[in-house]
Parts: sequence; structure tokens; C-alpha cells
Amino acid sequence: MTEHTEVLDMRWDGWGDPAKATEKLPGGVSLLLTAVLGHRPRRTARIRPADVELTTPELPADDVRALAAAVGAEYVRTDHDARVLHAGGKSTPDLVRRRAREQAAPGAVVLPGSEAGVAAVLRIAAEKGLAVVPFGGGTAVTGGLEPDAGDHRQVISLDLRRLAGLERLDDVSGEATFWAGTRAPAAEAALAERGFELGHFPQSFEFASLGGFAAMRSSGQNSAGHGRFDAMVTGLRVVTPTGTLDLGRAPGSAAGPDLVRAFLGSEGVFGVITQVRVRVHETPAERLRDAFTFPDFRSGADALRRVTQAGTGPTVIRLSDEAETAVSLAQVGSIGKALGKGCTAIVLHEGPADLARARRDATAAVLTAAGGKPASGKLAESWDHGRFGAPYLRDTLLEHGVFAETLETATTWSNLHVLRTAVTEALTQGLGAAGARHRILCHVSHVYPTGASLYFTVVAGLAGDMAAAWEPVKARVNDAIVTAGGTISHHHGVGTDHAPWLEREIGEHGLRVLRAIKRELDPAGVMNPGTLLPRA
Amino acid sequence: MTEHTEVLDMRWDGWGDPAKATEKLPGGVSLLLTAVLGHRPRRTARIRPADVELTTPELPADDVRALAAAVGAEYVRTDHDARVLHAGGKSTPDLVRRRAREQAAPGAVVLPGSEAGVAAVLRIAAEKGLAVVPFGGGTAVTGGLEPDAGDHRQVISLDLRRLAGLERLDDVSGEATFWAGTRAPAAEAALAERGFELGHFPQSFEFASLGGFAAMRSSGQNSAGHGRFDAMVTGLRVVTPTGTLDLGRAPGSAAGPDLVRAFLGSEGVFGVITQVRVRVHETPAERLRDAFTFPDFRSGADALRRVTQAGTGPTVIRLSDEAETAVSLAQVGSIGKALGKGCTAIVLHEGPADLARARRDATAAVLTAAGGKPASGKLAESWDHGRFGAPYLRDTLLEHGVFAETLETATTWSNLHVLRTAVTEALTQGLGAAGARHRILCHVSHVYPTGASLYFTVVAGLAGDMAAAWEPVKARVNDAIVTAGGTISHHHGVGTDHAPWLEREIGEHGLRVLRAIKRELDPAGVMNPGTLLPRA
Repeated sequence: MTEHTEVLDMRWDGWGDPAKATEKLPGGVSLLLTAVLGHRPRRTARIRPADVELTTPELPADDVRALAAAVGAEYVRTDHDARVLHAGGKSTPDLVRRRAREQAAPGAVVLPGSEAGVAAVLRIAAEKGLAVVPFGGGTAVTGGLEPDAGDHRQVISLDLRRLAGLERLDDVSGEATFWAGTRAPAAEAALAERGFELGHFPQSFEFASLGGFAAMRSSGQNSAGHGRFDAMVTGLRVVTPTGTLDLGRAPGSAAGPDLVRAFLGSEGVFGVITQVRVRVHETPAERLRDAFTFPDFRSGADALRRVTQAGTGPTVIRLSDEAETAVSLAQVGSIGKALGKGCTAIVLHEGPADLARARRDATAAVLTAAGGKPASGKLAESWDHGRFGAPYLRDTLLEHGVFAETLETATTWSNLHVLRTAVTEALTQGLGAAGARHRILCHVSHVYPTGASLYFTVVAGLAGDMAAAWEPVKARVNDAIVTAGGTISHHHGVGTDHAPWLEREIGEHGLRVLRAIKRELDPAGVMNPGTLLPRA
Repeated sequence: MTEHTEVLDMRWDGWGDPAKATEKLPGGVSLLLTAVLGHRPRRTARIRPADVELTTPELPADDVRALAAAVGAEYVRTDHDARVLHAGGKSTPDLVRRRAREQAAPGAVVLPGSEAGVAAVLRIAAEKGLAVVPFGGGTAVTGGLEPDAGDHRQVISLDLRRLAGLERLDDVSGEATFWAGTRAPAAEAALAERGFELGHFPQSFEFASLGGFAAMRSSGQNSAGHGRFDAMVTGLRVVTPTGTLDLGRAPGSAAGPDLVRAFLGSEGVFGVITQVRVRVHETPAERLRDAFTFPDFRSGADALRRVTQAGTGPTVIRLSDEAETAVSLAQVGSIGKALGKGCTAIVLHEGPADLARARRDATAAVLTAAGGKPASGKLAESWDHGRFGAPYLRDTLLEHGVFAETLETATTWSNLHVLRTAVTEALTQGLGAAGARHRILCHVSHVYPTGASLYFTVVAGLAGDMAAAWEPVKARVNDAIVTAGGTISHHHGVGTDHAPWLEREIGEHGLRVLRAIKRELDPAGVMNPGTLLPRA
């Protein structure tokens, strides 16, 4: 195992690497914002972690002693900074809350260094009535990291960063076993040394952990080619308060229901994923980036559908709507020419050189036949280069008092435009009711033979308490999604934010199945209260 | 809905269509059997359904009345023939039991004509303490159709044949919704009319139902291209004794664990699958069949691995070992030339003409680079032509007193030969202990990026009670499979036959999860007792 014991590696009140943070808005974005919002954005105030007054008490000394006996005294942290840094995730409302003087935080941060340590912590938590919030990369955006004690007297954060590293690589089968706390870049680095790649690149790539990907059913930008994280996982080890599961015996088993799937998306409410076994592939020899333009979103989406149903095999295929195309072009410096120029699709093909080229040709033939025109390769290079950049831009916007948030859903191809219209209307009406000028961008981020996801970016001039102002808008969107046949989440997960809408998606008996599993594995109900399962 | 109310459409004591049954052994097979078994096979006796003495009582009249009120009197059958025809599945031991004078059978056969009817039957069964065995196509081969009442006083067979037909086709999204009792050929016929194909062709294709495919996690011969049935299912409706679930809202959801997967492979122990929504694709324009030969099984398997990991996209790819290659060639009439001639792989590519040819070229390049040599296209045509024929041959063998059975497992590529050796040794030792001369054939039937399945065919000269003689051999094989890291089933399922081995595969807590779901949905425990979940 590779230990990563440093705690401060992301911005505490923003996204990611402090070294990459930029305080200055890109010129094109500043111009656009002025046009959209009606005023020039201005810098706003931030506070330091030390300035936060914690509203929740430190874990009592006897609890600390019991946990210290299990994992070592230096790995039960009750200092102010550790608690503040585990107080929540990275949604925009989370970051807004990081700017308040008073904040809730877990009573302690526990960092077990072994699977036995995790099991001991869960046993102690169940005995003593301490709620446990598993913490991987800390990149959750749906409230699953809220320090919510539920019916219990205290909550602890269980940070998995010490449970990290590549445990085993089966280079014949193309299977790698990682400890769940392994961050995605560390996983790729360990695989790259052996000539392999996992190829899971969500926006959270720089910080998210493999256990987090599994717990949240993550999707990545390359999922068209390599599948969602769900599809990559071939096995899991899960420690629950009542015992440990070792699941995923063989590819293509029919030995009863696939229990791996009961834990993918379980968001820490049944137990803690400690090990993840994943399918990996040889590092692609070739990487071909292309862009196409379509007259409008509808024709572009139809072209993506045809590619996916034909199975030509792109690694990445995504389509920005007119508004997002304009902004993206603005970011590559050609705003003047771009506005009102239709929709851009980005396509990436990988693999052995021959296959990559054959796949690219097949995709290009389908896209062209469906009305697409090849566009400048610069667009695809620019997307590729900036693919993890959006959250940094969100930070800069927030520092200029501009609210920027993303939300996502998925549905069948035949229902895609109905759903897009419903979400757009809900946003427009909600932000209108809040008196906020705004811009809504949308893209198809992930494709499946039967449907696709829609990813919305909202930039809004919300005044006052931005998190409070956003809440009714988001509720209106969630209502619209479930009414219009979308899923409440395509890849951000349920967390606490979407939990009230889950029953409308999976029904009363769906919830009953999840609660029955939880009762069996976590009878004391200490695992991540309030997340996934709505309060009764 | 399309009703299929005829009950007699398979041979009662054999496989499939009585019209296709052949009483004469093919010449090559007869010669081979004589060589393998040391004697010429001779015809043995069969009995008629009317000759069977049922050892289990007919359902009492008040139970019949209650069920008749729910589904109609003509759909609660207690006549001798209906009961005998629902007495079990189609494993070779099942067929051997069909030759005994005394047999157990369900007390009645109930045929609901609507989902509400299914719900009513389950409510009545739970109230009255009647065990329920769901019955789709009747093709189960692991004992899941045993008329086992468990702790209950009687057992009824719930036949889904009236719940059949294509309910809806979304031709944009490529999604079709079928009632669960729809037989696979009827599903393909309904889709073909609209230019679509499901493309799921297991050996049981001619009779199996779509609900059965889902309940058993079926794999088909074309699964390399179209995925296992698991991967085709985008939604399910399931009626349980406590309520109904409607699952699978959108492709690529992350709204908690994928509950569809809790019911795929549930083998009727949680409830009855009433509706199946599946991904379909346009009828392929091109269909290209090829064969390759390899010097031995190891080099052939390695070539299949390379194709699968490169993702060149064959629809079918399978590899027979030396023994199976010899028998297959014997069946196409060239036995003399074939014996000892290495291993044959069959490859099929489909799709739009251009894509099919590009895929075929890519596959051929990988196979050739890995040591494969193109072989006569006749081999592939012969396989394609005879792809559903093996069970008919089994019937003929059984009528000649020769025991023929299949079994299957899967594992990672790196463990494939270890597992094959372990299973072969277990069979050899077990059949040796039984004093039976035999021949063991093996093929790789399904491939995945991380591993493959192994499908064994055993032909043995078992004397006396063949089912009783086979039982310890099969137990020895199951022990060998779980010890050598294989799954207890790749596609035949768990049933009653594999249930005692399930805990060694999924662990104590895996079983606890399944039992917790069952307690929640079927608190009276009436659904398919003894199947999947081993007796406590």
C-alpha cells in the first residue's frame, strides 16, 4: 500500500490544486459574463480555515481513545484544520458554505491504514453510536459528505487516503486490484509503468479516489469507449459493520444476482469499499482528435445516436449545444466568429494505430452522413487540453460573485429533447423567480445505444445567500427531471441533495430493497445517515 | 399481449420440438461412440406421460377455487398431463427422471393472463402457504423447476405463457418492451417485422422465454457482439408477494445501486418478472462466417483473448478443444481427416456491410498474428446451421442408453487453463470411480476482456440409475470449480443443483444480502423454495 498522509492537497474552499487556481477571469469569459449578467464581475471575500467557528463539538476523549487503539493515535485527528477540511464536498453550495463564519464539521477524522482498521472503526462506531461518513477524494457534489449524525450523537469522517496503491496487476487478464483510497492519477501512474491504462477520466479525475468512483457509479469523459466505472469494476471488497464481502468471482457469472452491483452506487450507506478490482487495457498507441459541427442540437444528437447504435467505437463523443459551443469557442479566443454558429461535437478515437484509424473513419462516415461537417481540429485539442479545467473556472467565477453550477440527467434517445426542454424551462423559471440573469449551457456528455446523458452548466447572477437562492431552483429542476422521465442522476449520484427524489425514481419497493440490505449489514444505522436513503 | 395457451409444445421427456427429434444416431457419432464407450449404443425404453404415477397430491379444491377466482377457472389446471409437463426442467438428470414410473409434480398449473393476475396469485399463495415455481419456457437445467414445496403444504407451477408478446417498440432508442412469457423466437419474429433484432441465441433459443433469460442471467452464442442478456436488459417489472417494482429508468443512471441487477439472476425467489425491456438493434445487413485452426487449445485461447482485449468486434467467437474439434468434424463427415488436427475457432461478424467487413479484417489480423490459420468456411457454416441441434442429439444418445450432459464455468484468462485442468480431472476421476468410459469435450463459448467461459460436454457410459451415478461426479466438479477459482455457473444458473456451492462463491454476507431482500419482498417464503438460496 502507498500511504498519502498529507491532508491539505485541495483548496479548502474551492476545487483542486491551489497551484493551478487562477484569480483572473479569462478575457473572453469576462466579456461574456458582462453581456449575460449585465454587470462586470467583481472580486468577493474569502475566509481562512482558521477563521471558521465550528458549530459541532469535537469527538469526546473516550471515543477518541477507542478509535486510537484501533488505528493508532496519530490517525485520529480532532484538530480544527482536519475537521474543517472534511466538512463537505465540492458542489457550488458546498463552496458557498465554506465562506460562512459558522460551519458544521465531523467530530474527528479517522484514517485507518488497513482493511482490519476499517473493520475495527466500524465495529466501534456501531457499538458507541457514532455515525460514519466515508471520505475518498472529497470531490462529492451531491451532499454525501455532509457531517450528518442522523440519530447518533456524533459523526466521524473515515478518510481512506492511507488505504491506497496498486495491490496486484494481472497483465494477462487485464485486471488491476487497487486499494479504494487510491486517487485516479496515482492509479493511472502505477498502471502506466506497466504499459496499461484504466481510462476513467471524470471531471473530478485529479482528486477523486477509485473507491469513490465505485461508491458513486462515476462516468468519465472516455466512457463511450471504455464504459462507465460500473462496467470497469470486476470485483469489490466491502467492509460493513457486521462483516466483510469479497465479490466478483469471475467475468460473466450467472451465480445469482451480481452483488457487486448492490454496492456500486451504495454511497457508503451499507459499508466502506476497501478494494476495487478493475478491467484495464494496454496504453493506446494512437489518439485521434476530431471536431464536427452540426446546424443545431437536434441534428447533432441524432448523429451521436447513429454512431452509438452502429457501434463504430469512439473513445469520446460529446456534443455541445449552441450556447455552450459559443462559450467554448469564446474560450479558445474566437468568440466573434462563433456566436450563433451551430453545435460542435468532439470525437476522440484510440487504440492500436490501425484500429483507431478504422474506428475514426467509421465514425466520421456516420457523422457526415447525418449532416456533420468536419471542423477545425483545434476545437478538439482545446477541449482535450482543458478537459479538467472547468471547476477551476467555477472557483474564479465564485470569487467574482458569480454562481456557476452543473447538473445532469439521462434518458432514452426518443425522450432526450423533451427532457432537455423540461430542465431548461425549470431552470429559466426558477432563476427568473429568483430575479437572476443567467446563461444555461448544455451538452450530451455520455452516450449509450438506448439513450444519452444531458449535462447542464448554469451561470447566474444570484444575489444574497447564493446557496439558499439556488435551493428552490434545484428542487424545481429535480421535479422536472423525474416528471419528464429522466434519472435523478446520471453520474453525480444521490447524496443528500437528491435523496428526496429517489422514491419517485425507484418506487416504494425499490427503497424497501435498499433499506433491507442496510438493516442486514448496518443494523445500528451508523453508515452515512441522510445519504442515498431519504429520512423516513 | 399474444396468448400461447397450448401446453404441449416440447417433448415431455426430452428436448424441444417433437417434429425435429431424430431416433437415429448420425453415422459418425455412432462410430465415435462405439470407439469411446466400447460398445454399440442400443435403443432403450421410454414411457408415456399417462403411465406416470404422481407421488404428490393434486391441489385441494378450495385452493383451486381461490386461484380460479383470480385468473379464471380454465387457467387453473390440475389435470394429470399439465402437472406432469411442469414437473421439472431439461437437464439430463431431469430427463432421466422423466423415465421413472413415480414422479413428483406441482399440485396445479396456474396460467395468469395479466400482471394483476400474477399479483393476485402471489397474494393467495402467501396467504394460503402455497409454494410458487415460476415457469417460463421450461428449459431450466439446474433444478430451478423442481416441484419443491419447501416448508409449505403444496406447490403450484406459475406458467407465464399467457403473459406474452411485444408491448412496445421504441425504434429511435432501440428499446423493446416484452411481456416476460414471450418465447425467444416469437420475440425475434415480432422485431424482425419492424427491422430489428434482439440477437440473443442461447442453446435454449427455440423454447426459452425472455423472463427466463432475465431470471437466469442467460448468455447467448452472439454475446461476444451483443452482450449477455444482463447487458441487453434496460428495465424490468417484477411482481412480488408484497408489491410490484418498475425498474430501469434511464440508461447510465447513478441513482443508487442498479436494482435491475438485483432481479437479474434472482431465479424466481424474490418474485415473478412480468415485463422485460431490452436493447435491440437493426437487423444486420451482413453476416460473415469464418473458421480458423490453431495448433492447440492454449494458443487458440490466447488468440481469442487478444481479439477480445483489442475489441475488434466479432458477434460470435468460440474455440473448441482438440476433442470437440474432432467430434464436430466427425459430424460434418470428415472424421478420418480430422482427429488430432488441433483446435477450431468459429468467428461470425455482423453489422452494416462496411463495418462487418472491417471488423472481420481486424479480427482475422489478430487471429493470424496469434498463430491461427484460416480454415474451410464449411466448418463455420456447419456450426451455424447446427447451432441449436446439440440437445436433440442428447435426446437420441439418451434413447440409446448413453449419458450426455453439459456443464460450464468461467474465470479470468490467466486462470483459464488451471480451471480447465481442474474440471477435467474431477470429471475423469469421478467417472473413473463410477467405472464409466467417457469422452470430455470442451470449448470457450463466451469471451470477456478479462476472462472467458469454459463449456464442457460429457458423454459417458453410466450404468444403472444414470442420474444417481452422475450426482457424485457433478458434486466433485462443483468442488473443483470453486476451489480452482471458477464461478459455479456462467449461464446455467444456480437452481437447486448449484445452491449448496453458492456460499463458497459469494460468502456468508453475500447470502445474507440475498436473504434480506427475500425476507422483505417474500416474507412468507413462498417463492421457489430450495432454488438459489441453499436451505439453512
